[in-house]
Amino acid sequence: MQYSFASRAQTLLSSPLRDIRELAKRDSFISLAEELPAEELFPVHSLAEAATSVLSEDPLALQYGEAEGYRPLREWLSQDFSRRKGLHVQPQHILLTTGTQQAIDLLVRVYVDPGDPVLVDNPTSPGLLQVLRLQGAAIIPVEGDQEGMVPEHLEAMIRKHKPKLLMTAPNFTNPTGVAWSLERRKKALDLCISHGLLIVEDDSYGDLSFADGKNQTTELPSIFSLEEKQGEHVLYVGSFSKTVAPALRTGWAAGNRRVIEMMTAVKQMADWQSSMLNQRMLHHLLESKHFQLEDHIGMLNREYAIRLKLMVELLKRSAWKDSTYTIPSGGMFLWVQLPPGLDGEALLRAALLKGVAFLPGSMCSATSAQDRIRECIRLNFTHPGRDELLLGMNLISEAVLEFTARN
Amino acid sequence: MQYSFASRAQTLLSSPLRDIRELAKRDSFISLAEELPAEELFPVHSLAEAATSVLSEDPLALQYGEAEGYRPLREWLSQDFSRRKGLHVQPQHILLTTGTQQAIDLLVRVYVDPGDPVLVDNPTSPGLLQVLRLQGAAIIPVEGDQEGMVPEHLEAMIRKHKPKLLMTAPNFTNPTGVAWSLERRKKALDLCISHGLLIVEDDSYGDLSFADGKNQTTELPSIFSLEEKQGEHVLYVGSFSKTVAPALRTGWAAGNRRVIEMMTAVKQMADWQSSMLNQRMLHHLLESKHFQLEDHIGMLNREYAIRLKLMVELLKRSAWKDSTYTIPSGGMFLWVQLPPGLDGEALLRAALLKGVAFLPGSMCSATSAQDRIRECIRLNFTHPGRDELLLGMNLISEAVLEFTARN
Repeated sequence: MQYSFASRAQTLLSSPLRDIRELAKRDSFISLAEELPAEELFPVHSLAEAATSVLSEDPLALQYGEAEGYRPLREWLSQDFSRRKGLHVQPQHILLTTGTQQAIDLLVRVYVDPGDPVLVDNPTSPGLLQVLRLQGAAIIPVEGDQEGMVPEHLEAMIRKHKPKLLMTAPNFTNPTGVAWSLERRKKALDLCISHGLLIVEDDSYGDLSFADGKNQTTELPSIFSLEEKQGEHVLYVGSFSKTVAPALRTGWAAGNRRVIEMMTAVKQMADWQSSMLNQRMLHHLLESKHFQLEDHIGMLNREYAIRLKLMVELLKRSAWKDSTYTIPSGGMFLWVQLPPGLDGEALLRAALLKGVAFLPGSMCSATSAQDRIRECIRLNFTHPGRDELLLGMNLISEAVLEFTARN
Repeated sequence: MQYSFASRAQTLLSSPLRDIRELAKRDSFISLAEELPAEELFPVHSLAEAATSVLSEDPLALQYGEAEGYRPLREWLSQDFSRRKGLHVQPQHILLTTGTQQAIDLLVRVYVDPGDPVLVDNPTSPGLLQVLRLQGAAIIPVEGDQEGMVPEHLEAMIRKHKPKLLMTAPNFTNPTGVAWSLERRKKALDLCISHGLLIVEDDSYGDLSFADGKNQTTELPSIFSLEEKQGEHVLYVGSFSKTVAPALRTGWAAGNRRVIEMMTAVKQMADWQSSMLNQRMLHHLLESKHFQLEDHIGMLNREYAIRLKLMVELLKRSAWKDSTYTIPSGGMFLWVQLPPGLDGEALLRAALLKGVAFLPGSMCSATSAQDRIRECIRLNFTHPGRDELLLGMNLISEAVLEFTARN
């Protein structure tokens, strides 16, 4: 039969990531394209213990639960936000989601009408762009630099487009890895307050900070924490996918009661609720004496910092001499500007033939014709082990050389 | 600040179920309103064993996985469909979702544009109505009787509205519990094929069949299985929430490759994928020698049939003498037409004061002014234990008497 899909559904099929994932199923394939934590560092034994305990305690762990999410886990989060991040959020102003991506999708579904202008980082995450495209938003990229979004450009875009939403990730932005300066955070907040915009602050990567001995609350305060009346203009989203394990599918949105209420209603409509089992297991783990989240994150960050350092060493080789990049102080990605004239997608095609992948910059661009972003690539350094990282970078270097040697 | 939600978002807040859920948190409250299986019958020990095994085998059980879902579970489903249900579906034509509700939401997001007419059972499930309302569909109810949708009315609605989609649940429809006759299934399929409609067949309740000794494949064949070229015009959705446990959040959509591909893309956008841990646990359970799904379902059905019988006995009391109902042969619900003039929502308000809830018929109606449906209520008999059922029905009877005594 002739299937007649919705008008914007085709925007979903454009992703080269889909092909990469197919290729990546091959055994010898190395992917620096994805956004995966290192599975060898998962707290497997503690979670096995959590599963046993939770399932032996109460069959309700297998039942439907509240759409808002498991109340004790929301209480834990509320306390953790306060203790580690200077955020003051009541449990009833937190919605548990199956990860940051769902939190973003839910918010966009209840807040954005087709044609509504929405401001985003430039470049920004492919997952966010997909959500906005399917909803039919008018995506307005705001220029940034190594300090974060440029306030003058942000203000100009606000005045020009009168958007109702700014969606950003000030801590180790995907894909650039930029951590916004305190001043830029304050500026963006002030502008959004004075023009009545809601900010969606994605803090998926905030805990992955490699700067030793620094206090995250004071060094990288969330925009949410900077508002006098916290939660009024900022929705704070994040997840345990990078800090504990993705398969627990647990993230959150925290903010104003009315926004959370509306998101809870659409969450219920979309999938009733997240898994009670996963939420209870996570809560059990976080409350366990044998597991300290901060220690675990510290261990992750030490290993990820080593992998990043290795990647940076490998970028010093001759193949990359005309490339530029800034070393991030956290997160999962290194964003590399290729030698002039070298297109990220063209390089990807060559790299795939060699059995390696990365994310081409074009995927992170709201518009199709931005040369600067098309000449960039995003390299993930958290998932590949050290050997894999070495081999993968060697293969990409070979591909770069094949192009640059021609010129 | 002034939050400016999307234009259709308000449709989400209309649900009286939300208030019922709040009330139901009280300890002594009895809810016959929801769609819950009996938690005391969950295979808790087998699932605890599955969790331990899965987590000890492979840390990838905690990693991100394929958007389509865990391949071995899709293979298991493909074989189960063939063996028990006469469905022939390749694993690559199955998408695993976090339940039936998500399968329906994903399909509607990629298939329905605002204003598109969509045919549904009348009455139909509140969850389906919410999805269609948020997407802006023009919802067209099709009349049915104890045999299923009435073909003449279905054809008239197809000719009048030229819809591209029919969404139905022919096995123990929510809320009426009706099981369509074979003839009606064939008729609906023929009409949809000749007019080029896609059918979404929700089989969430199909396994909950209380008719002893009957072969489900021949007695209640899915519409999907009746099509010569299976999967061309029918998308088959369902879940393990009623047969194993809701907290595993695992359901499916099976059908044509193009439809599944598009749904997979939107699934990836909506939440990346369902929990790998839950999917692997479920697969381990289904493959375990200590657990037989058919035996487990048989045990559930014996207990649910007893609870239904008890409910029917209680309906013979004088309070209900002017009510009418048909005893379903499976599913989770009994649909009762109240004494003439008694409104379901008014009765609910009185019942809530007594500490008991049910679903008022109005929640299942696509239109706001259908007297017949407003005078009906949906009673769930699977979740309350026998004592609770007795007490809950007594309290509702009291409420009914208060109304009928006045007239």
